[in-house]
Amino acid sequence: MTPFSTRLTVDLGERSYPIEIGAGTLGGLGARMKRLGVGGRRVFVVSDTNVAPLYAAEATRSLQEAGYTATFMAIRAGEESKSLETLEGLYVFLLDGGVSRSNAIVALGGGVVGDLAGFAAATILRGIDFVQVPTTLVSMVDSSVGGKTGINHAKGKNLIGAFWQPRLVLADTDSLRTLPRGELVSGMGEVIKHGVIRDAAYFEFLEKDIDRILALEPEAIGRVVEGSCRIKAAVVAADERETAGVREHLNFGHTIGHALESVAGYGSFRHGEAVAIGMVAAGRLALRRALWPQADQDRLERLIERAGLPVRIPRALAQNSAALLQAMRIDKKVRDGALRFVLPERIGAVRIAGDITDKEVRSALEEAAA
Amino acid sequence: MTPFSTRLTVDLGERSYPIEIGAGTLGGLGARMKRLGVGGRRVFVVSDTNVAPLYAAEATRSLQEAGYTATFMAIRAGEESKSLETLEGLYVFLLDGGVSRSNAIVALGGGVVGDLAGFAAATILRGIDFVQVPTTLVSMVDSSVGGKTGINHAKGKNLIGAFWQPRLVLADTDSLRTLPRGELVSGMGEVIKHGVIRDAAYFEFLEKDIDRILALEPEAIGRVVEGSCRIKAAVVAADERETAGVREHLNFGHTIGHALESVAGYGSFRHGEAVAIGMVAAGRLALRRALWPQADQDRLERLIERAGLPVRIPRALAQNSAALLQAMRIDKKVRDGALRFVLPERIGAVRIAGDITDKEVRSALEEAAA
Repeated sequence: MTPFSTRLTVDLGERSYPIEIGAGTLGGLGARMKRLGVGGRRVFVVSDTNVAPLYAAEATRSLQEAGYTATFMAIRAGEESKSLETLEGLYVFLLDGGVSRSNAIVALGGGVVGDLAGFAAATILRGIDFVQVPTTLVSMVDSSVGGKTGINHAKGKNLIGAFWQPRLVLADTDSLRTLPRGELVSGMGEVIKHGVIRDAAYFEFLEKDIDRILALEPEAIGRVVEGSCRIKAAVVAADERETAGVREHLNFGHTIGHALESVAGYGSFRHGEAVAIGMVAAGRLALRRALWPQADQDRLERLIERAGLPVRIPRALAQNSAALLQAMRIDKKVRDGALRFVLPERIGAVRIAGDITDKEVRSALEEAAA
Repeated sequence: MTPFSTRLTVDLGERSYPIEIGAGTLGGLGARMKRLGVGGRRVFVVSDTNVAPLYAAEATRSLQEAGYTATFMAIRAGEESKSLETLEGLYVFLLDGGVSRSNAIVALGGGVVGDLAGFAAATILRGIDFVQVPTTLVSMVDSSVGGKTGINHAKGKNLIGAFWQPRLVLADTDSLRTLPRGELVSGMGEVIKHGVIRDAAYFEFLEKDIDRILALEPEAIGRVVEGSCRIKAAVVAADERETAGVREHLNFGHTIGHALESVAGYGSFRHGEAVAIGMVAAGRLALRRALWPQADQDRLERLIERAGLPVRIPRALAQNSAALLQAMRIDKKVRDGALRFVLPERIGAVRIAGDITDKEVRSALEEAAA
């Protein structure tokens, strides 16, 4: 049997790029980059201390076989590395390596590596080529596609960054086999989100095949990456810089999710866990306004639970609604003071609500508490 | 007599923006921004410790009269402020002020303020609106137009940055009256460069009116800002991201100029002084290849001298050719190892030479030494 593989395009005019998805594609990284004319002669590979021992050798060998000089650096694994300090370390790595405008950075790892290395690519020499090689589910289905790059600040996540599109995204689904179970499950948060915001059929496929997906049955997991990337690519193509109100739909579950991550401290929740709870809470907001049916809320919560994700906010955290509301206000989705939420209408469709009161948020937090 | 004023446009499709030039235009800043729909309700003004005492009150008043809430910060004057550390301070200023994506940053000052505040605008919340209010000659005729923003690194100038176009450039030529003489003279380096690379008639105007220009006779200095901005705007419109080989012409005098600044230590030369010497040395390279006439080299050196700028490299520095060559190699204009220079062909035209040897550079440095 031929291993599952497929190819999508993110359609952004002169900034369009392919997404290559499949089992065992990592060995073709160098050849694919060469065909696209990316990187000149030299490529800087950025990975982290978890992923490097597993995949750096294969990635580097593939680049060298294609004729590139490949230089390698591993950052410390973890969200703490999305910092100005680690970024400065990357700048030194690139400049010590004699980086020129024709070179490229390859991000080999999860969202932290992709966001950080992408922001370095966006800002070194005012911008060089960039390739995403996501090795986690959340980065394959979400962060590697769409060009959002950046780092965190003490005041909140992703407050510093740039829109900088990759030239290629290459997702080798085989790399999910070495992913810790909790990280795989976390990725399902974004996957479920994609179904809710855009595609009822995709949501039904998830409901039907969740067990095969979590077992990493190759075609099932391949279809998940393909389906989510297709949705993400369409949203990004319609609204590259989040100015048209379309891309904002991807924030479903994220307003409360980010606040949970921020108040509990980065690392207390996995991103997908925080998003899962955030979706449940946003669903509660929509329920209270009679915007969407109880039956759909039940389906959402049921799928989240079957994926192994939480549906309840730890009570102590839910009771700290003042801190959570403050964190939502500093979040960049807040415009001139008004709290904005993405609320579900039905499985497959969401809308923006710009007039959510603090009282409604407090009630939803209370209802979603454990 | 009506004060001199004029308006140009930088033509970049949806990123096009006006340049307003004139005596006494600062008081109209807020109204012009409002007409362009820039900044939402809140504007963050970034200036420095030299310029703030002179013009911050007028700028802030103009913004408030137009209905903006204006928040103000002054960085320490000087090239040392183009650092990650000062940038981090700007991020805190913006985030403490509750910056949202609809807000704008106004850079009120010279090139350091514009480059730094522009890079902050490019990277806070992945990019917000930005207005340039240049108060020095070099920033009026060069750095405020074209969207180059960034900071320095220990390894060289402007190695970290982004292309981020302003929404408006407003140059009040009255502010040049408070500029130290040496800074005014420094600005003439870029002005003379514009004549050499693109416009023989403009160069002749400079030869004819240099004394009235340096005396800040309003129409003469207004025509200088207008003429240089027109040339810069045309070059930028043809090659926004320096990928088409056109914008590279603006680097005339800068390959050696940047190396001089780097090796002598930032602050030893004013930028325009280093560029002036760099143009003389690039002219020597062209002379040695018989690419341009001795008569034009003489006109170039004569105009530079009449403007009060240096034409010779201090001997001790010229003799350190190894360090200068190394600095040229780290400079971002070097692609995969080859030294590239912009060489003059005649007053009004330049070409790229990608095959300059170290030996030629050493000879040119020697000839240009004091």
